[in-house]
Order: sequence, then C-alpha cells, then structure tokens
Amino acid sequence: MLIGKHVVFLGGDARQLEVIKSCIEMNAKVSLIGFDNLQSPFSGATQRRLTKKVLSQADILVLPIIGTDDQGKISSVFTSEEIYLTEEHIKALPSHCLLFTGLAKTYLKNLCESNQVNYFELMMRDDVAIYNSIPTVEGALMMAIQNADITLHDSQTIVLGLGRVGLSLARVLQAIGAHVKVGVRKSDDYARAFEMGLNPFYTSELGEQVENADFIFNTVPAVILDSAVLSHSPYDVVIIDLASKPGGVDFEFAKKRGIKAILAPSLPGIVAPKTAGKIIARTMMKLMVENVAEEGNLQ
Amino acid sequence: MLIGKHVVFLGGDARQLEVIKSCIEMNAKVSLIGFDNLQSPFSGATQRRLTKKVLSQADILVLPIIGTDDQGKISSVFTSEEIYLTEEHIKALPSHCLLFTGLAKTYLKNLCESNQVNYFELMMRDDVAIYNSIPTVEGALMMAIQNADITLHDSQTIVLGLGRVGLSLARVLQAIGAHVKVGVRKSDDYARAFEMGLNPFYTSELGEQVENADFIFNTVPAVILDSAVLSHSPYDVVIIDLASKPGGVDFEFAKKRGIKAILAPSLPGIVAPKTAGKIIARTMMKLMVENVAEEGNLQ
Amino acid sequence: MLIGKHVVFLGGDARQLEVIKSCIEMNAKVSLIGFDNLQSPFSGATQRRLTKKVLSQADILVLPIIGTDDQGKISSVFTSEEIYLTEEHIKALPSHCLLFTGLAKTYLKNLCESNQVNYFELMMRDDVAIYNSIPTVEGALMMAIQNADITLHDSQTIVLGLGRVGLSLARVLQAIGAHVKVGVRKSDDYARAFEMGLNPFYTSELGEQVENADFIFNTVPAVILDSAVLSHSPYDVVIIDLASKPGGVDFEFAKKRGIKAILAPSLPGIVAPKTAGKIIARTMMKLMVENVAEEGNLQ
Amino acid sequence: MLIGKHVVFLGGDARQLEVIKSCIEMNAKVSLIGFDNLQSPFSGATQRRLTKKVLSQADILVLPIIGTDDQGKISSVFTSEEIYLTEEHIKALPSHCLLFTGLAKTYLKNLCESNQVNYFELMMRDDVAIYNSIPTVEGALMMAIQNADITLHDSQTIVLGLGRVGLSLARVLQAIGAHVKVGVRKSDDYARAFEMGLNPFYTSELGEQVENADFIFNTVPAVILDSAVLSHSPYDVVIIDLASKPGGVDFEFAKKRGIKAILAPSLPGIVAPKTAGKIIARTMMKLMVENVAEEGNLQ
Ligand SMILES: NC(=O)c1ccc[n+]([C@@H]2O[C@H](COP(=O)([O-])OP(=O)(O)OC[C@H]3O[C@@H](n4cnc5c(N)ncnc54)[C@H](OP(=O)(O)O)[C@@H]3O)[C@@H](O)[C@H]2O)c1
Ligand SMILES: NC(=O)c1ccc[n+]([C@@H]2O[C@H](COP(=O)([O-])OP(=O)(O)OC[C@H]3O[C@@H](n4cnc5c(N)ncnc54)[C@H](OP(=O)(O)O)[C@@H]3O)[C@@H](O)[C@H]2O)c1
Ligand SMILES: NC(=O)c1ccc[n+]([C@@H]2O[C@H](COP(=O)([O-])OP(=O)(O)OC[C@H]3O[C@@H](n4cnc5c(N)ncnc54)[C@H](OP(=O)(O)O)[C@@H]3O)[C@@H](O)[C@H]2O)c1
Ligand SMILES: NC(=O)c1ccc[n+]([C@@H]2O[C@H](COP(=O)([O-])OP(=O)(O)OC[C@H]3O[C@@H](n4cnc5c(N)ncnc54)[C@H](OP(=O)(O)O)[C@@H]3O)[C@@H](O)[C@H]2O)c1
Repeated sequence: MLIGKHVVFLGGDARQLEVIKSCIEMNAKVSLIGFDNLQSPFSGATQRRLTKKVLSQADILVLPIIGTDDQGKISSVFTSEEIYLTEEHIKALPSHCLLFTGLAKTYLKNLCESNQVNYFELMMRDDVAIYNSIPTVEGALMMAIQNADITLHDSQTIVLGLGRVGLSLARVLQAIGAHVKVGVRKSDDYARAFEMGLNPFYTSELGEQVENADFIFNTVPAVILDSAVLSHSPYDVVIIDLASKPGGVDFEFAKKRGIKAILAPSLPGIVAPKTAGKIIARTMMKLMVENVAEEGNLQ
Repeated sequence: MLIGKHVVFLGGDARQLEVIKSCIEMNAKVSLIGFDNLQSPFSGATQRRLTKKVLSQADILVLPIIGTDDQGKISSVFTSEEIYLTEEHIKALPSHCLLFTGLAKTYLKNLCESNQVNYFELMMRDDVAIYNSIPTVEGALMMAIQNADITLHDSQTIVLGLGRVGLSLARVLQAIGAHVKVGVRKSDDYARAFEMGLNPFYTSELGEQVENADFIFNTVPAVILDSAVLSHSPYDVVIIDLASKPGGVDFEFAKKRGIKAILAPSLPGIVAPKTAGKIIARTMMKLMVENVAEEGNLQ
Repeated sequence: MLIGKHVVFLGGDARQLEVIKSCIEMNAKVSLIGFDNLQSPFSGATQRRLTKKVLSQADILVLPIIGTDDQGKISSVFTSEEIYLTEEHIKALPSHCLLFTGLAKTYLKNLCESNQVNYFELMMRDDVAIYNSIPTVEGALMMAIQNADITLHDSQTIVLGLGRVGLSLARVLQAIGAHVKVGVRKSDDYARAFEMGLNPFYTSELGEQVENADFIFNTVPAVILDSAVLSHSPYDVVIIDLASKPGGVDFEFAKKRGIKAILAPSLPGIVAPKTAGKIIARTMMKLMVENVAEEGNLQ
Repeated sequence: MLIGKHVVFLGGDARQLEVIKSCIEMNAKVSLIGFDNLQSPFSGATQRRLTKKVLSQADILVLPIIGTDDQGKISSVFTSEEIYLTEEHIKALPSHCLLFTGLAKTYLKNLCESNQVNYFELMMRDDVAIYNSIPTVEGALMMAIQNADITLHDSQTIVLGLGRVGLSLARVLQAIGAHVKVGVRKSDDYARAFEMGLNPFYTSELGEQVENADFIFNTVPAVILDSAVLSHSPYDVVIIDLASKPGGVDFEFAKKRGIKAILAPSLPGIVAPKTAGKIIARTMMKLMVENVAEEGNLQ
C-alpha cells in the first residue's frame, strides 16, 4: 500500500491515467501537474502547478513514458502549456524520492545521476517488454490479415527473432494454423523453437528460407531482410516489420521489387491503449510498493 | 483428371478465377461466357457468347457462387452485358451435364429439377462451411482487434454457437490467450467444449454469463442477444456478430445502451478472397472428378 | 434436486460410488442392494436386500454400468452374493420409475420394453462418449510412452478415425509435438482436420500413409490395419489400438512381422477410475433431475 | 563433413551408438575401444584396444556421457574389461585433438586443463538441456497418469520452476487440458508465464497455492516442497519430483502425511533412449563439424 505517500505526476498520455487510478486506489496522496485539460478529473487527486515546493514534498515523481526530450521538455497531452524539467526541480526532490519514467534520454539520465536521484526506466525491463509483446502480437495479426488476400492459416510464415516479441508472435501464429518457421542465431533459441514445434533455422540461411514465404514477420532490430535476401522471396510475400525504426527491411529494394513491406511501430499504444496503460500501471505499482516498503524499513 | 471434358463458365466473381485455373490445369476444355472484361485472359480458355449450341456441348456448367437471381439473371463482375439463364438454355444441356453453383435460389432449383439436371450447391456442403470458417475466423479477429482498446489476450470472451464457425473461432481465441466461454444448447456440444477447455454454458443462462464479458462473438442465426440479455452486459463490451443477416443482436437496443455491436457478414471474400476462391476450386474439382469419373464408368 | 425421491442402486463397481455420493448430496432417499462389503458405508444410504417390496417403492433404479448379463445376472464388486434381476422384479417397479444403466444387453432391453419401463443407457450417449474420450486419451498417451524408445514429440504419428475419441486424441498428440496425420472417410471430417492443422488423408490411401509412421493410434472399429496395410509399415512402428474388441488390427500378421501392436480396451476405468465415475455421476444426475422434474410436472 | 578425420570412441552406453552411426555417415574414420561385446558390430568402424598409439592418431576422442569417475575409470556397457583413462593417455593426444563428454568430473577436468586439451561438456549446454526436456516431459506425463486415479485434464496442476524443463512441461500440461499454475521467482518468468496463459505465482506464496492442487510437478533443485508447504496441500495430491537428487520434496514428511511423492530422475534415458541418443549425436556432430572446420582453416 502507498498510504500517506505523496505521488506527483508530471505530464503524460492516456496510458498514465491507469497509473493515476492505481495510485489513488492504493491510498496515495496524488498531485497532478500538466493535467489541466483532463476531461473527467479524478476525485482523489489534486491539480497543481510545477513548483519546487511541490517537488520537495514528493515521495515519488512520475514522468511520461517517453521521459523528457533533450532540453528537458515534458510532453503532456492533457495541457496546452509548455513544461520543462530543470536541474532546479531535480535538486528540490527529497533524497528518498523515487523517479519513474519509461525511457530516460541522456538529459534526464545525467540530471538524475549527478543529483543522486534513484530512477526507474520501465521500458528497459524484461517483464515489461514481455507484457508489451502481447498487444504487439495482436497488432501484427491485424496488419497481416488486413494486408493479404490469403489466410494466415495454412500459409508459409516466417518469424525472424525469438526474443520477447518473436516468441509470443510465433506461438500465436502457429496456433492460428500457419506453418511457422523461426529464424534464430543462438543454439538455445534453436532448441526452444524445436521443442515448441516452431521449425527453426539459422538466419545465416535466410536467403533459401524465404523462397516460398507467404508472410514474414520481423522482430530483429537490424537490416536482415536486405536486397540479397529479398531477391529470393516471392513477389507476393507480405512483410510486417515490427523492429524499432529504421526496421529490418531494405524498404527501397522491397518497393522496387513490388513487395508489400510494412513498418509497424508502437503497436501496443495503437491497438490496445488501455491494456498498454495497465501494463505500465501494474509494473509501476509493484516497483513503488517494493521500493517504498524498503525505504520504510530503512528509516 | 478432366481430360477432354468441356467445362463452361457462366459469369462469376474473383473467386471463380481460381476454379478456371484449376480446370485448365486438369486439362479440361474451358469456355468462358461473361468474362469479356477479364484483365489478364487465360491461355487455355476460349471466350464465347451464351448460345444453346455451346451449352449443348457442355459436360459441366459452372454458374456464379450466388447462382442466379429470381429472374434467372447471372451476375458477373467481368462483363458489362446482362446475361439471363432461361429454361431454353437448361433444356439445351446434354443429359449427362453437371451443373455447379454456390447456392441455388428457387428459380434455378425449379429449372434444374423440372429438367432433370444434376446440380451441386457448394455452399450447402458441410466441408465447404468448415473451410470457410477459417477466413471467417481471421476476419473476426481483425474486427475485434480493430474495435477494442484492450487485447483479446486475458479478456473475458464469449463465443455463441459451437457449429462450423463457432468451433474454429473458439479454438483460435483460446490459443491467443482469451478466457473463452462457449454458449451451446446440446449436451454433446457441451461435452466437446469441456474436452477442449472451452468452458461451456447453456445459452438458457446467457443473461448471467455476459455480465463481465469484454468480447462476444455470435454465430447463432437467431436473435439471441436480445434486450433482456444485453441489459446484463457491460457497456464497454465489444460484440462481433457473424450470423447471416439480420444477425443475432438487437442492434437498436445495443445502440441505445451505448454498446458497440458490429454485424460482420461475408468475411471470407473480404479478408481472404484468394483463399475463399481456392476453397471453392478445390471442392468443385473434387466433385467434378468424382462425378465425371463415375459417368465415364457408366458409358 | 431429488428431495424425497427414492433411488435404488443394484450392484456395480467403484464408478457407482460417485453416483451414490451425488444422490445423497441431492437429498434423495438412497437404498443400496448388493453393497454389503462396502468398506466405508455411506451415511445417508440404507443397505437392503433385493425384494419386490423395495422395488415397488423406487422412483429410480440404477443398475451397473455393464447392465445385466444374458441371464439377468447383476455383477457387483461389493458383494459375494449372486444377484439376478428377473421379470418379477421389473414388474414390481411403479410405472413412473426410471431405470439407469450403462449399456443394456438384449435380456434387459426386452424386459424393459415388454414392461414399458422407461430406461436410459448412458454409454450410448454422445456426450458420455466425449467425456470418456478424455481418460481414454491419457491412457493412450501413457501406453505409447511406455512402449516406444522414442518420444511422441517430433514423431510421425497417425490417428485413425476422427470420431469422439479420435478428435480428442489427435488434438492432444499434436499439442505434445507429434507430427499428426489423421485418417478419415468423410469430407467434413477431412475439412475439420485441415482446419485444426491435423493433416488429413482418406483411409482409402492408408497403405501409402503408414510408410514412415512411428506411431499409429486406431479408433476405427473395423480391421483397418490389415495385412495389406501393415506390410507397408516400418517394423518398429508402435500401434495402440483403442477400438473395442476385437480391435482394428490384424494382430496375428503384426506379430509375424515383428510389429508391436497393443490392444488397449477400457482405459477410462483403468487409468482414471475416479474421473470415469464422475463422468457417469454427472450425466446421470442431470438426466434424473430433468426427467424427475418432468414427471413432477405431469402429476 | 568429417572426411578423413579419425574419431575414437572410448566406452559408453546405448546412447553412444547413435553418435557412432552419425560419425560413420559423415565419413569419419571410426575406432571403437571398449565395445567388444557389441551385438551388431558397425561396418565402417574398427574395434581397437586402448593404446597410446591409437590416441596419438585421434582427431576427436569421445568419452561416455557420464565421463570418467574420480579414478579415471571409464564405464562401458559393451565390454566386461575395466578401462582407465590416465594422464599418459591424455598426453598422447595430438594438440589439435578435441575431447567430447557429457559431464566432466574434477579428475577429467584437471587432466584436460593441465594438458591443454580442448574439451566439450555436452550436458552443460543450454540447447542440450532444452532438447532433453522433451523426453523428460513425456516421462513426467507417464508417471502422473500411472499414479493418479483422476485425469490431468481439468485437474488443478502446479509446475514449480519455469526453466528449461519447467517451460516445456507447463506448456504440454496446459495443452492436455490441466488448469496449470506456474511457480516462479523472477518477474520476467512471471510475465512469460502470463503471456502463455500459465497463471503464474511467486514461489514465496507457495503455501497458499498448493491448497487445492491435484498434481505438483517440481523442477526446482531445492527443497521447496518442505513440511511447511506440504502441510497446506491436500492428502491426495500427486507429486512428481523431477529435480536432480536429492530433489525438491521433504519426502519423509510427505510419507508421514500420506502424500504420494515420487522422485523421477533420469527420465530421458529411461522413456526414450533412442531420442536421448539422437539429441547427443546431433549436438556432438554439430560441434565436431564446426570445430574441426575451424581447425582446418587454421592449418
Ligand atoms: N512494433 C511494435 O509495436 C514493437 C513492440 C515491441 C517491441 N518492438 C521492437 O521489436 C524489436 C524486438 O523487440 P524484443 O523485445 O523482442 O527484443 P529482443 O528480445 O531483444 O529480441 C530481438 C531478437 O532479435 C535477435 N537478433 C538481434 N540481432 C540479430 C541479428 N543480427 N541476426 C539475427 N538475430 C538477431 C535477437 O537474438 P539474440 O538473442 O541472439 O540477440 C532476439 O532474438 C525491437 O526493435 C523492439 O524495439 C516493436
Ligand atoms: N460472417 C461471415 O463471414 C460468415 C461466414 C460463415 C458463416 N456465417 C454465418 O454464421 C452463422 C453460423 O454458421 P455455421 O456454419 O457455424 O452454422 P452452424 O454450423 O449451423 O452453427 C450454428 C450454431 O448455432 C447454434 N444455434 C442455432 N440456433 C440456436 C439457438 N436458438 N440457440 C442456441 N444455439 C443455436 C447451433 O446449435 P445446434 O447445433 O444446437 O443447432 C450451432 O451450434 C450462419 O448464420 C452463417 O450464415 C457468416
Ligand atoms: N480403449 C478404450 O478405452 C476406449 C474408450 C472409448 C471408446 N473406445 C472404442 O473406440 C472406438 C471409437 O470410439 P468413438 O467413441 O470415437 O466412436 P466414433 O465416434 O463412432 O468414431 C469412430 C470413427 O471411426 C470411423 N470409422 C468407422 N468405420 C470406419 C471405416 N470402415 N473406415 C474408416 N473410418 C471408419 C468413423 O467415421 P465415420 O464417422 O465416417 O463413420 C469415426 O470417425 C469404439 O470402438 C469404442 O468402443 C475405446
Ligand atoms: N528427472 C529428469 O529426468 C530430469 C531431466 C532434466 C533435468 N532434470 C533436473 O531438473 C531440474 C531442472 O532442470 P532445468 O534444466 O529446467 O534447470 P533450470 O533451467 O535451471 O530451471 C530451474 C528452475 O528452478 C528455479 N529455481 C531454482 N532455485 C529456486 C528457488 N530456490 N526458488 C524458486 N525457484 C528456483 C529457477 O529459477 P531462476 O531462473 O530464478 O533461477 C528455474 O526456473 C534440475 O535439477 C535438473 O537436473 C531432471
């Protein structure tokens, strides 16, 4: 429980609302900064302005999932004001205050480290990446079904990468009835894919493997579907590229060859914003409770 | 094989192209009527006009999936001409000629029966309905993912009906990670659902069952989701109604209550036209070969 | 509920104990005949002798799963006495009395029919066959694992028949990682197997299909694995024959050829007697409640 | 390929035969030491005695899966002679020679290291552990089915540990229809189990979790099912302990409480010796080819 703890939210998007809701439910004292346009305000939370005073009373400070930009700008979809997080603000935080964000860019990282602020980057966590693989998979399914004139069922389907996303994806495609092959580079991934009936191959042989592919789903963050590989694939293959920008496909070559290749980033927030918000809320709550409790013990 | 057999196609849509292709591959002599605007004409098939002469030489006559209308009009997306199938045409067919269509309305049925023409309705077949359940399921998935802000995974999901579509659908939803419950009315369907881990209930208890539903997929061709039932469901449930028109939902009531309910007919041709065409081609070929062979034996 | 109803049990084996338990729980008045050696007697049930008097007061009479033999002999593992069910006994039953058994042989059938006794044969029901397929499958798995020196995973496995047992079995073998092919003879079974990824073939081609089989599971109650077929199979194939006696294998030929073929009847009672008992109890309770209620309405 | 390479086998059990077969197929020159009682000798391999001469001509030396004992004794089921591997033997090996075994005890490890012999321990590899999880799972299934009077289907089943064995096992139990819960201690394992529908819990709460368990499968190599936990479990739970000796159960307490708890070590070699042999052969071949090729490049 977070009874008596003061949690300050500084900006964010729809996903943050789930976190605010959870904090209120856990009896924290909640302050919101940069949420003045919120359509249905929370009973149990107080709107405030960004001042050193407020921050000096924070036990927990929650920044947006995307942190700040390189100038310290905080983005919030719920305000029209510009908000900047400065060194002064950070210095105002009490020493026991915990800071939560999704990903910390250099600016924020430096600020925290030089001022000894204990910060948590949620998107760097393995568990969060696995939870996020779930809406990612559903988004990938949707895109594949929208973009092909055949079914996934009974199709020749390749999944590249057996990491957090790849494993979830390959399993679901198999369950839908696709003939799945998985491209990996480690022998233990090869063995796991074999155990799961996922027909592994080593990505070193990718050229031959794509020859009769109907669908290719990429999760490898490297240009693995380059011109050499694509020149072996059928013209009517559908490629869904999930790897973060710039993706894993030579898109220019694909276009020239008439291959449909689609870069599909940020699917969780698009296909299932509420689930995406809950994933963050759940993990943040767990971390808050664990770390605040620890604090308590130390005092 | 169909060597030497004369197959005449009379109208149709994209799905028919797969059947034409298959007939050519099986060495039939192929005539096309009502295909004059075909973009890439088939080598191996001859374009013809609708005459009694051509029909009198047909071993097999293939009508569109949707047959004729009640005046005998043949629809074809590949011609701008109007084509009508009359009693004269039917009388011109040799007595051994087989007629294939998807569904025969009364007009066509009467014509065939009063003239002793042996006809096959593909869409009445159990196997075709099962094959078609596959693209139907993928279309339903796509619509559910598009229309909800949560994932199917970990959702409370109800499938109504465990027939040809319902069984395929429930299985896939379960594999994706939904908590699936299946509404049935026969004790053997109940038992099969139990065996497959699909948490059956009898549709007589539908009211209580919908209380915490996130998704409801309906395959029952009867207004089963009526106002009495819908008044028990959450406001934010997403309903995908697959049953043929008018569907199984009291749409007016759903709208009043603010429930998202979507009628989603004819999915196979929409989400996977090529697969839908292949399903028809494969079944038609099988029937042709079986029945022509028999004929052969009799001669 | 069975409040006030008098249920008389006449013999049976361990599976009947679950039924007795259920009747007591539903507040029936329970009489037991042929249970004098019961180790832990039921509180809530009365031991009796077989008399016309008792029977004349029965609302429901429950015979063993295997009914009577052709002389009317009732088998019971819980008594050392010989018990016979005669026409006199049947005549003593009140006209509204319902009789339950697993399977009625000619003797019992005739008795019931000539005396207008309303009887239920549980093992003839589709739902019971499906429920029983579950322990049957687990028994078949166990026997296959015991009898081979390779894993089911990654094996070439054939399931013959896609009926109540075949469907359950094929699904589980596939989930364990076997490469499953299913032999069927109906086009809709073929389609369903295809939809489920079970690689169907028609049993007319069985000879070619067995050529590289590691395991064959038979559920077809006909000698389908005859010498002609077996002469195509590898020597080290393991055959588990589930079909009721005499099974579906030419065992003599198999032995000559050195093939391990095992007839495995009555698995539910062997591998999971408690589950097998519950299946019967659940179905019998449902039927009793439904039919007794109906009775009630009529009176 | 291993053309021209000299592979020397020194002892072993049935699993080694698959390796020998593979080496012959890959055109290696094969010498066998300690295989004089082999029932069906390999054409393509030569029986030899253990001499320094033979070893001095070896490119690859293959020891038994279990290596040597602490005195250097080599066990072989195919000879009645006693064979010892001494420092002299190791010194005789050419410097490029590769040594393969399953697990190297201190004696062998020291010998190899002090003489700079390049050795490979197969059982330490992640991929081998995953491959071996497959026959382990089938053995565990078999034992569970044999030892319970209910089905796995619809049972309350707990799997402890989501490592190489735990993941394979939980997946299969779920597919068979058990209600599976998985006990883990890492948040990413928790997330993966959630994604796979495996209902995770933290092992810190094990006590409450076992309360309605029908089956518990343990893969955690620590006494996790201690008296405190077992005192919460039902009397009729069936425990299958897969962890290597001494296992994860307080067996004495279990016995006192009347709980059936079975330690089931070394399942792969017992339930599927041929598959177990192939796993080793496949991995060894891969390593030989990779490492011999490298050698070749260096020369
Ligand atoms: N589109 C979306 O909505 C969305 C959502 C989530 C994640 N993502 C993105 O998807 C990608 C995968 O995410 P993840 O969480 O699955 O990451 P991950 O767990 O690190 O998986 C990446 C996989 O790619 C493999 N890989 C990396 N480089 C490779 C190479 N050169 N050749 C062959 N395989 C290689 C890795 O293998 P090793 O283990 O051998 O390195 C691993 O299997 C990331 O770019 C991530 O940002 C996108
Ligand atoms: N949207 C699309 O793209 C698409 C594609 C294919 C099919 N469809 C349509 O989907 C529907 C289902 O097709 P199908 O092939 O699955 O048909 P089906 O095999 O006949 O299945 C219909 C199911 O509904 C049950 N049912 C019927 N009336 C009921 C009632 N009053 N209460 C409870 N259950 C009832 C049936 O149970 P019993 O067995 O007990 O009768 C059966 O399980 C049809 O309307 C079909 O035209 C739509
Ligand atoms: N060993 C045990 O413990 C155990 C437990 C339960 C049942 N059984 C036995 O297992 C057998 C199957 O039971 P079930 O409940 O699954 O029966 P079922 O539902 O009737 O299934 C039998 C299957 O065999 C097929 N078949 C029948 N004759 C055939 C033939 N000549 N060629 C090809 N296929 C043929 C049927 O196809 P069609 O639909 O085309 O006829 C059907 O798919 C029965 O003998 C039953 O007594 C044994
Ligand atoms: N019976 C057989 O035939 C057979 C066959 C193969 C293997 N085995 C044995 O089975 C065991 C598991 O093998 P494996 O390959 O799956 O090993 P593994 O991959 O290391 O898995 C062990 C699992 O146990 C967990 N664990 C360890 N200590 C724990 C603790 N104190 N509390 C909670 N969880 C704990 C580990 O979690 P962390 O990741 O958090 O450490 C991991 O998930 C080993 O003892 C192995 O020798 C037996």
